[in-house]
Amino acid sequence: MTATQFAGVIPPLCTPLHDDWTVDTASFRRHIDAQLTAGVHGIFVLGSSGEVPFLPDAHRRVVLETAVEQAAGRVPVLAGCIDMTTLRVLEHVRDAEKAGADAIVVTAPYYTRTHVAEIDRHFRLIKEQTELPIFAYDIPMAVHNRLDREMVLRLAADGVLAGLKDSSGDEAGFRFVLLRKAERGLDSFAVFTGSELMVDTALALGADGVVPGLANVDPDGYVAIHRHVRAGELAEAKRVQERLLNLFTITDIAPVTRMGRGSAALGAFKAAMKLRGFIDNAVMAPPQVPLNTEELLQIKEKLVEAGLV
Amino acid sequence: MTATQFAGVIPPLCTPLHDDWTVDTASFRRHIDAQLTAGVHGIFVLGSSGEVPFLPDAHRRVVLETAVEQAAGRVPVLAGCIDMTTLRVLEHVRDAEKAGADAIVVTAPYYTRTHVAEIDRHFRLIKEQTELPIFAYDIPMAVHNRLDREMVLRLAADGVLAGLKDSSGDEAGFRFVLLRKAERGLDSFAVFTGSELMVDTALALGADGVVPGLANVDPDGYVAIHRHVRAGELAEAKRVQERLLNLFTITDIAPVTRMGRGSAALGAFKAAMKLRGFIDNAVMAPPQVPLNTEELLQIKEKLVEAGLV
Amino acid sequence: MTATQFAGVIPPLCTPLHDDWTVDTASFRRHIDAQLTAGVHGIFVLGSSGEVPFLPDAHRRVVLETAVEQAAGRVPVLAGCIDMTTLRVLEHVRDAEKAGADAIVVTAPYYTRTHVAEIDRHFRLIKEQTELPIFAYDIPMAVHNRLDREMVLRLAADGVLAGLKDSSGDEAGFRFVLLRKAERGLDSFAVFTGSELMVDTALALGADGVVPGLANVDPDGYVAIHRHVRAGELAEAKRVQERLLNLFTITDIAPVTRMGRGSAALGAFKAAMKLRGFIDNAVMAPPQVPLNTEELLQIKEKLVEAGLV
Amino acid sequence: MTATQFAGVIPPLCTPLHDDWTVDTASFRRHIDAQLTAGVHGIFVLGSSGEVPFLPDAHRRVVLETAVEQAAGRVPVLAGCIDMTTLRVLEHVRDAEKAGADAIVVTAPYYTRTHVAEIDRHFRLIKEQTELPIFAYDIPMAVHNRLDREMVLRLAADGVLAGLKDSSGDEAGFRFVLLRKAERGLDSFAVFTGSELMVDTALALGADGVVPGLANVDPDGYVAIHRHVRAGELAEAKRVQERLLNLFTITDIAPVTRMGRGSAALGAFKAAMKLRGFIDNAVMAPPQVPLNTEELLQIKEKLVEAGLV
Repeated sequence: MTATQFAGVIPPLCTPLHDDWTVDTASFRRHIDAQLTAGVHGIFVLGSSGEVPFLPDAHRRVVLETAVEQAAGRVPVLAGCIDMTTLRVLEHVRDAEKAGADAIVVTAPYYTRTHVAEIDRHFRLIKEQTELPIFAYDIPMAVHNRLDREMVLRLAADGVLAGLKDSSGDEAGFRFVLLRKAERGLDSFAVFTGSELMVDTALALGADGVVPGLANVDPDGYVAIHRHVRAGELAEAKRVQERLLNLFTITDIAPVTRMGRGSAALGAFKAAMKLRGFIDNAVMAPPQVPLNTEELLQIKEKLVEAGLV
Repeated sequence: MTATQFAGVIPPLCTPLHDDWTVDTASFRRHIDAQLTAGVHGIFVLGSSGEVPFLPDAHRRVVLETAVEQAAGRVPVLAGCIDMTTLRVLEHVRDAEKAGADAIVVTAPYYTRTHVAEIDRHFRLIKEQTELPIFAYDIPMAVHNRLDREMVLRLAADGVLAGLKDSSGDEAGFRFVLLRKAERGLDSFAVFTGSELMVDTALALGADGVVPGLANVDPDGYVAIHRHVRAGELAEAKRVQERLLNLFTITDIAPVTRMGRGSAALGAFKAAMKLRGFIDNAVMAPPQVPLNTEELLQIKEKLVEAGLV
Repeated sequence: MTATQFAGVIPPLCTPLHDDWTVDTASFRRHIDAQLTAGVHGIFVLGSSGEVPFLPDAHRRVVLETAVEQAAGRVPVLAGCIDMTTLRVLEHVRDAEKAGADAIVVTAPYYTRTHVAEIDRHFRLIKEQTELPIFAYDIPMAVHNRLDREMVLRLAADGVLAGLKDSSGDEAGFRFVLLRKAERGLDSFAVFTGSELMVDTALALGADGVVPGLANVDPDGYVAIHRHVRAGELAEAKRVQERLLNLFTITDIAPVTRMGRGSAALGAFKAAMKLRGFIDNAVMAPPQVPLNTEELLQIKEKLVEAGLV
Repeated sequence: MTATQFAGVIPPLCTPLHDDWTVDTASFRRHIDAQLTAGVHGIFVLGSSGEVPFLPDAHRRVVLETAVEQAAGRVPVLAGCIDMTTLRVLEHVRDAEKAGADAIVVTAPYYTRTHVAEIDRHFRLIKEQTELPIFAYDIPMAVHNRLDREMVLRLAADGVLAGLKDSSGDEAGFRFVLLRKAERGLDSFAVFTGSELMVDTALALGADGVVPGLANVDPDGYVAIHRHVRAGELAEAKRVQERLLNLFTITDIAPVTRMGRGSAALGAFKAAMKLRGFIDNAVMAPPQVPLNTEELLQIKEKLVEAGLV
């Protein structure tokens, strides 16, 4: 049993766009409803899956407002406040507060060459300026910096951090966090994995929540894993997770010779979401390269194979 | 002889701040005047030395407006439009245009995992939206990505890029760009080095401009190097450059065990600028860690030794 | 049930040394017996835990001969044939054959900037020259290169590779390998994790074997995890694994300001092995820095706490 | 004026091989003579250009003996003693001593995760065991570790190091070493650049020697640069260097999609050496991938263009 309101399956929602790259709020509302219908326990907007680095502040505000309004208190809304350093992050925090988000998610500083003392100060300064619970977002792939484990735990003990979203891919490190959380009685500190592929394992190890990008395509799958693990049905959970591992290979269809790994994955998610009717338009924000017809066809085949369309 | 209006010594200006981290425009104007008095040929605002990743958009606008007003057409003003992706960069481009900047400086996308095809598209999309000359900013230390050399040259040939600011530290690669520029007759393509330490060499190899952060502390030194190289006095240029290499060691005084390399360097620059009377306050934006008394004393000693205070 | 003779707990044995850095064969034999008494299912010599990069070829031969003789057919002996490229590796393969090892373990080329086509060729050329089963050793921390997953699976399908030792720390990637192994009917392809910290999970996911360095200190713990997982007692396995996570923190006692992470870990292992009576001398090969008295005391305290001394 | 016997143009010789990958000593002798005829001031064998990571110890010994015999005291012979750690390096040092080499070249430890304290100890332990002058080889591309500048200078001051071969590509760092060498009166400490592309600049900045791989193809060019710089003819030196920059593009002909950057460069060097009649066979040691016919044709065209065949 988790002692935090932030727990369970909390998908990092993709942001549907129009051809002019403004937010397609109708699709976004429909997508949120599809997720809630599937039984997710929260939503995380303005993460990497949400194209947060691609969205101007005004677009981000639309995302926040739409998400909070559409969730309508049914589940908590976590808001990515993703920017390079403290003062810039604080402006996004203001927007999250205004929109009524339930928690914020903040990375280490990036672009600048930083230090653990500065990362620690970063989170403390933000805490001084907001009542919202703060999740530290460990995403070295984006910020080129790992969060120091002891720093995170110290910030949790000091009441600065309400949780951790770990997208580092370091499962052993994640396990240490869970172990120390238990030892130190940090019951209300919510520990999430950002992996799509180790959700059953993470939950079995004691993770409070999971934030799988692939839930944009198949929320039912992740809700099923969560339910199975909670019921002690680990073999069933593993079976669903393995199905989702195979589904995840849609992110490898567009080749590295043609585009970045970000666009290949996001383009696949959005194409699949469109095929499933969750959104109207699979367009990605610039300068991302779109998937081509052949790649889209392969994605469709994988979805058909998976029984999802 | 360079065929571009963007040439010579173009310091990347530090941004003086008040204790509340707003821009100290009085100090900034004084600093700009000190640079112009020393004879610099342009100024670059909102680069790494200008703490651009630390400044909210409103602060950035103040920097732009103050710089353009204070330069008053005496030298061109280049404006860093530093953000993660195209749409966000374009908002900074609008601000640079409104303020009356003479050119913009743009990095590859970051935070996201990108690709040369996307970086190419990034610059082309920005070019479609502005009349301002665009400098590509190659700064792998910040964006964790090198600009592809042939892409840069192709964008130059296609009229997308007006110049390159190379802060990659790869002098041999820089030399290839200069060689190809000459071969392909890209006369108006302005090639700058961002190094503080190889300015004499870069100019002797044919660089159009140099953008040394240390010029914030000693603009006369860099102007002297430029004059010497233009006069064919390479030994004198080397002598001044070697003095500046020694001065640059102020950036190593604060130890890596206490802060990031960014703060150590910027803190040293700002401390030295204050000691020289260019600015009133050496404070850095959060979450950067300030230098301590002992470190500041060592900086002062180095400046005294160099005859700068 | 695994279809391979290479399965279960297969510790990567440390190499006890004398003060003159020759191999302490008496200690080594005693250590091997301690491991076999604990019930391990194989031994892996001349891996990273065995200080393979530190040992001259003659020392390596002593290790091989002693291990094979002492194991005496009771368990299989896997031999690291660790060198930079094909021809050099083949000389170690000859030594492994002469000594009577049961399988060899080979990394991607290193020092040189290589390519998947060359890594593929590397394994195929080695296969042409030996009858011994070949394990690919995925250890990016050492060789600065990940093994391509599809290449590994193709080499398995082609009969080139008998197994994989995955020390990449990428649990999700590991899981993909296990999934594809099952799908493609590669029953005799033995998949090992090199992690100390995810052994219960890896076995539950279907790993054939585990190669935990910490088993040098506590072989009983890992044998217990293996037994529990095979018996479906996942909660018990998790409890033992968590105890071993805590024990593993002995590798963090020596600080990064004083020595490399390799020496800190290996020094801790050897100190603990000596405290437990497995070996006589905790000395490491040069240029590794020895642990100091205070660090050794802390290791002892952790062992006492763990009930191991 | 340099105070060291190790100075001038010192090519890192490629190692000609037979089809069975043994050393083609006849070609090797011819190649050495071609280099000496061109006027090089020393030769460096068993470096990266010499395929040292690919050669078994017996092959390395043949290289050493052949080189020393063929040089016959006309120029000094520097021998790469390239291996992972101290004891292994010392075995190569013994071989270099036996063969009669004039100096040895040693990298930081690799494969293992090391530390500046261990690298320092590494060089000191080797110094204790040999009378031969030791060059530190800074090659982060291969060993994934930069040599600490102050450590190198301290080892020079302590008489441990006789020189530095800097293949880091960090020209500014190189310049600091030259500056400190002068300041601290380390007159006999020989500082070499490993760059092919900044030879004129490095010599003008005060480098004692240059070790350009491309000299295998065009030794006359590098000897000419050296002569021009010594004569103060910097413009002429620059002109030759620019010709050699263009020639160096033979290393980019084989694409990254087909092979590693090492094979592409070495394959181009060897193909060009064969075309120029220096060696009989362009074969590379395994697992390197050979260049194809089309790539070889492009190399020939570049050589024709350069007037070298």
